[in-house]
Amino acid sequence: MQSFINDDFLLQSDAAKELYHQHAEHQPIIDYHCHLNPEYIANDRQFDNLGQIWLEGDHYKWRAMRSNGIDEKYCTGKDTSDWEKFEKWAETVPYTMRNPLYHWTHLELKQAFGVDKLLSPATAKEIFDECTAKLRTKEYSARGLMKKFNVEVVCTTDDPVDSLNYHIALKQEGFGIKVLPAWRPDKAMAVENPVEYRKYVEKLSEVSGVTIRKFDDLLQALRVRHDFFADLGCKLSDHGIEEFYAEKWSKSEIEVIFNKVYGGKELTQEEIRKFKSAMLYEGAVMDWEKGWTQQFHYGAIRNNNSRMMKQLGPDTGFDSIGDFTVAKAMSAFFDSLDVSGKLTKTIIYNLNPRDNDLVATMIGNFQDGSVPGKMQFGAAWWFLDQKSGIEAQLNSLSNLGLLSRFVGMLTDSRSFLSYPRHEYFRRILCNLIGNDVENGLLPASEMDFLGKMVENISYFNAKNFFEF
Amino acid sequence: MQSFINDDFLLQSDAAKELYHQHAEHQPIIDYHCHLNPEYIANDRQFDNLGQIWLEGDHYKWRAMRSNGIDEKYCTGKDTSDWEKFEKWAETVPYTMRNPLYHWTHLELKQAFGVDKLLSPATAKEIFDECTAKLRTKEYSARGLMKKFNVEVVCTTDDPVDSLNYHIALKQEGFGIKVLPAWRPDKAMAVENPVEYRKYVEKLSEVSGVTIRKFDDLLQALRVRHDFFADLGCKLSDHGIEEFYAEKWSKSEIEVIFNKVYGGKELTQEEIRKFKSAMLYEGAVMDWEKGWTQQFHYGAIRNNNSRMMKQLGPDTGFDSIGDFTVAKAMSAFFDSLDVSGKLTKTIIYNLNPRDNDLVATMIGNFQDGSVPGKMQFGAAWWFLDQKSGIEAQLNSLSNLGLLSRFVGMLTDSRSFLSYPRHEYFRRILCNLIGNDVENGLLPASEMDFLGKMVENISYFNAKNFFEF
Amino acid sequence: MQSFINDDFLLQSDAAKELYHQHAEHQPIIDYHCHLNPEYIANDRQFDNLGQIWLEGDHYKWRAMRSNGIDEKYCTGKDTSDWEKFEKWAETVPYTMRNPLYHWTHLELKQAFGVDKLLSPATAKEIFDECTAKLRTKEYSARGLMKKFNVEVVCTTDDPVDSLNYHIALKQEGFGIKVLPAWRPDKAMAVENPVEYRKYVEKLSEVSGVTIRKFDDLLQALRVRHDFFADLGCKLSDHGIEEFYAEKWSKSEIEVIFNKVYGGKELTQEEIRKFKSAMLYEGAVMDWEKGWTQQFHYGAIRNNNSRMMKQLGPDTGFDSIGDFTVAKAMSAFFDSLDVSGKLTKTIIYNLNPRDNDLVATMIGNFQDGSVPGKMQFGAAWWFLDQKSGIEAQLNSLSNLGLLSRFVGMLTDSRSFLSYPRHEYFRRILCNLIGNDVENGLLPASEMDFLGKMVENISYFNAKNFFEF
Repeated sequence: MQSFINDDFLLQSDAAKELYHQHAEHQPIIDYHCHLNPEYIANDRQFDNLGQIWLEGDHYKWRAMRSNGIDEKYCTGKDTSDWEKFEKWAETVPYTMRNPLYHWTHLELKQAFGVDKLLSPATAKEIFDECTAKLRTKEYSARGLMKKFNVEVVCTTDDPVDSLNYHIALKQEGFGIKVLPAWRPDKAMAVENPVEYRKYVEKLSEVSGVTIRKFDDLLQALRVRHDFFADLGCKLSDHGIEEFYAEKWSKSEIEVIFNKVYGGKELTQEEIRKFKSAMLYEGAVMDWEKGWTQQFHYGAIRNNNSRMMKQLGPDTGFDSIGDFTVAKAMSAFFDSLDVSGKLTKTIIYNLNPRDNDLVATMIGNFQDGSVPGKMQFGAAWWFLDQKSGIEAQLNSLSNLGLLSRFVGMLTDSRSFLSYPRHEYFRRILCNLIGNDVENGLLPASEMDFLGKMVENISYFNAKNFFEF
Repeated sequence: MQSFINDDFLLQSDAAKELYHQHAEHQPIIDYHCHLNPEYIANDRQFDNLGQIWLEGDHYKWRAMRSNGIDEKYCTGKDTSDWEKFEKWAETVPYTMRNPLYHWTHLELKQAFGVDKLLSPATAKEIFDECTAKLRTKEYSARGLMKKFNVEVVCTTDDPVDSLNYHIALKQEGFGIKVLPAWRPDKAMAVENPVEYRKYVEKLSEVSGVTIRKFDDLLQALRVRHDFFADLGCKLSDHGIEEFYAEKWSKSEIEVIFNKVYGGKELTQEEIRKFKSAMLYEGAVMDWEKGWTQQFHYGAIRNNNSRMMKQLGPDTGFDSIGDFTVAKAMSAFFDSLDVSGKLTKTIIYNLNPRDNDLVATMIGNFQDGSVPGKMQFGAAWWFLDQKSGIEAQLNSLSNLGLLSRFVGMLTDSRSFLSYPRHEYFRRILCNLIGNDVENGLLPASEMDFLGKMVENISYFNAKNFFEF
Repeated sequence: MQSFINDDFLLQSDAAKELYHQHAEHQPIIDYHCHLNPEYIANDRQFDNLGQIWLEGDHYKWRAMRSNGIDEKYCTGKDTSDWEKFEKWAETVPYTMRNPLYHWTHLELKQAFGVDKLLSPATAKEIFDECTAKLRTKEYSARGLMKKFNVEVVCTTDDPVDSLNYHIALKQEGFGIKVLPAWRPDKAMAVENPVEYRKYVEKLSEVSGVTIRKFDDLLQALRVRHDFFADLGCKLSDHGIEEFYAEKWSKSEIEVIFNKVYGGKELTQEEIRKFKSAMLYEGAVMDWEKGWTQQFHYGAIRNNNSRMMKQLGPDTGFDSIGDFTVAKAMSAFFDSLDVSGKLTKTIIYNLNPRDNDLVATMIGNFQDGSVPGKMQFGAAWWFLDQKSGIEAQLNSLSNLGLLSRFVGMLTDSRSFLSYPRHEYFRRILCNLIGNDVENGLLPASEMDFLGKMVENISYFNAKNFFEF
């Protein structure tokens, strides 16, 4: 019997196999959005064991373990050993069948470690030992793993106040893989909490050297940092927002709102929305001035579990899919930029798949012929990063826009073992197209063009689009 | 040619056939949510004929007949004979092809009566006669049908004010199949109509023996009944709600609101929402105290047709799917329970399938590792109880949670002939998993684990979860 | 290798082939909703070349070109030749693979012109020349194309103030294909802009001969035109609305609102909603009085790009899918008509496919047994008019209503080359049903009934329903 993860995993037709093996498989990886810690790259972190690299920060796995009735100490416990956590994860893995974790786990075992066995309590020890031994070699350091997976560019996710010291070090060192910062100014918009916001603005003032007394100062400080990011090769911004904000606002209104929140007063909902509208707009203009691509990840409801939020903080597995009404605000926001000629290249990622078709048509409103695929419908994100989520995004984009112009996949991950998600995506893409050929929905005579299209979506579209 | 409903109906792969026939087919049925009339079980009702058992209360069939241009008198007419109604239903059946009614009808004919013929005007008389003859035998009484389908537990749906006399009788008699009440306090929340609400509270006072003068008395009266339900083996509550309610409220506010509505005054929308928030919370705490499982069926818009509501009353086929915004309130509601350590086992059923992924991620926020699958995404409900609806629920749960921990199917039905819906569900489940094996999405080497998983979803998960 | 568009295009099973070739293929076309210019039919327009007929008004193609990085002048430029535009379209076509434009383009080439080649820069010139030569013959005039595609009835989309002169001319001439007007009173509801609205009402007054001083005069003027449309064979109304409006209103309130807007004053949102509620209701009553079918196309957000709106006007490719909350208002609107016995035959088209199941259950609330399929869930519309959109609509209708009673497809198109969309729909329909037969979901013994069902959905249901 052939192994579960074999050469033709997910490839159900000859056309799919041809597309994947001849056109997708060997393309380099441009991971233009991820949450890797740049420190680990700069210091070329070596991991202690498979339990550590897999479980120290992976809220996907923690969620699955909690759902499987595993006690919290095996997820995030400080006094629990990596092996004990791993053992509980191994116990959970068979129960994840049909969840993407089952595929990811075995793809990672196979492609990073050459392990063909299925993870379960019966194989836990031997897999742990074999992979741990490898992880302690140079080939499996942070940088080793990036090289193993043929990574060409990585964009991390960074706060405007971040020193970017590790990016600077990597640049100075001349590390072969481009490790670039990306601009994520969420905290500069987070006016819900006046105390935290004031602290943030003070920090921003400090790192930028701009004294911030009013809203224009805030923008100026951000611009200083924006320039600094650009100097280090930054080409993308990113925004984690619940909704789009496109209230009507005037500079003088925003000045008043800024003074109020900076003075420690709670804002009304209307003031918050106006402020966010202004910040989104002003940030978008900065991105446009530099020819960056702006990204919007919208629709998550974060930190739903206040008990665990207090215990563990954010990004620990207590987020979920929201149901915001977004179309009119999204339209108004992009229109406000387009009408003033300041709409830069854009990627929109939705978390609720019920919005797939909405987003796929929204981008069409602002395609202006200046760049192929100027407005992008972003790859299936977070909870949707599984076979049917990926297929749904690809299908909506195909039906309502141009799949051929798609800039493709990113890991969005904190882990150096997540690169097989690019392989996963490429196999699913090739399988979809291959099925269409097989079923006569695409002409079998056009395999050359389709092969080129697969190469573009896997690599060249991103390369040309972002201009790193 | 083999018959339409044959051994391998819906099973498209060898793996599916193996999973179904070896693991699912012979499991008993735990029907943990239905609308059977307990009187019919206690008195072991014998039905007059096939027209009566199929058409006397089945709003699914009535809807189909009305859509087919059949006059109302053949649906609900008091002066129309069972045969006349049946004849019109038989005329409609071929027009239901691709609707689940076509499958349900022929599954019921085959599995209850051994009838292989397709129902149509040509076969109506002979099928009516054959099935009617059987229905008049003991084997086809209410209890006979329950035994025929290997039912182990049934939970009916009961109002707090219900005497539960039939449940008591069944318990005293020692009927082999467990027939347990379930707690459905919808009317205790229905403050939209002060007059009806007052009547209800007075009735509740009477049956509980608690004089109700204020909100705390209301809670006390409900608690008395809650205890009484528990004494009769109740293990589940259920709530039919449009939306989730999680407004901020204080005891004193609710006291005022209760006094206002009890005094006959119309409440404002805000007061109604506050009151419902309080009631949902207080009810959830009672359920937690007893270790019950709470169920929420949300998202229906009921009684859309006011002309027919006046003529026929509720539950007559004039309900449909709503489009409520729910995520934040749902999150806040469960969080308010979790933060005080009072969140009991929970099942959430959505009626609008656009919320499938939302619900499948929402449950993840409150999985606490105490019980496998403590928070459940409920089986496809009502309008969604058909092949693609069931598949969509199973797929969302698989992609975003743990299918392996799912407590599985229930009939939600008023009919003693509806048990083949468990078979329908199991076939669809096995087919989905079998297809995955066939396509290499699940490892063929793991058929033993998958078989066990199918057994668990069909029977053992529910058995262990509810602890009847 | 057989050609891309071959006899069995989209037909994946023997059952599908039998259903299509024996039952669907040769049915006439009833195109009960389209945007053809009646002038072109009356004058039997002859097109200059393939570039002109394809690109002079087709915003689907323009959107694809803009997404492909093509400059606006090749879409809508006044100084760009048809050939230059066509060349850029040919360049774009390969990039539309997986978009319905790729299928539509090659279906039109094959079925209208007998061209088997795939359109690309390599074939652009030869295809342009061959098709242009044909377009200059009588066989390819506006009327020639309608005959070629076996069109029996066409309903155009017309404003109440339209003279309908071309319809009159066609009727007097006795043109064999019925070309009927349809009533689209959107501008009579467009009170957002008082100045434009006043102009419109004055125009309406002029063409109707009714002096309009108050709301009742407006209704009277509309009724005069409604009668005039009826005299010319009109059987359908149509409404392009964002949402359904069902606010409570009184005649006196509407009188006041009408006077205010007619007097040039801006209305509040509440007044606008009340006015639209009244107009929708009054128009629906007129339709019911004449036994017309009312259509509602809801859920588009139009003219999202204000820069291009200024430059090109509406219907130029800057519209997209909205996310309105609609269920309760939709229900209340139809209930207000049903309760007074004035609900006429109705078709509801949604643009956001997340509402498919909602609409498919909503129609069930108002099926009254008077006409089979009195309430219809309209065919996949606009952005959804592609394989998966069509399948999704057919599946929702099947699961939640009666597919067998569906009145089927319409082009909704401005182009005389769009009739292959009926073929496209029929192939998809036959393929869905054929797959069900192949997979045992429908009984293979019922191919006769299924064949009849396909004939009905392709032709006879519409013929019987609309009574042209």
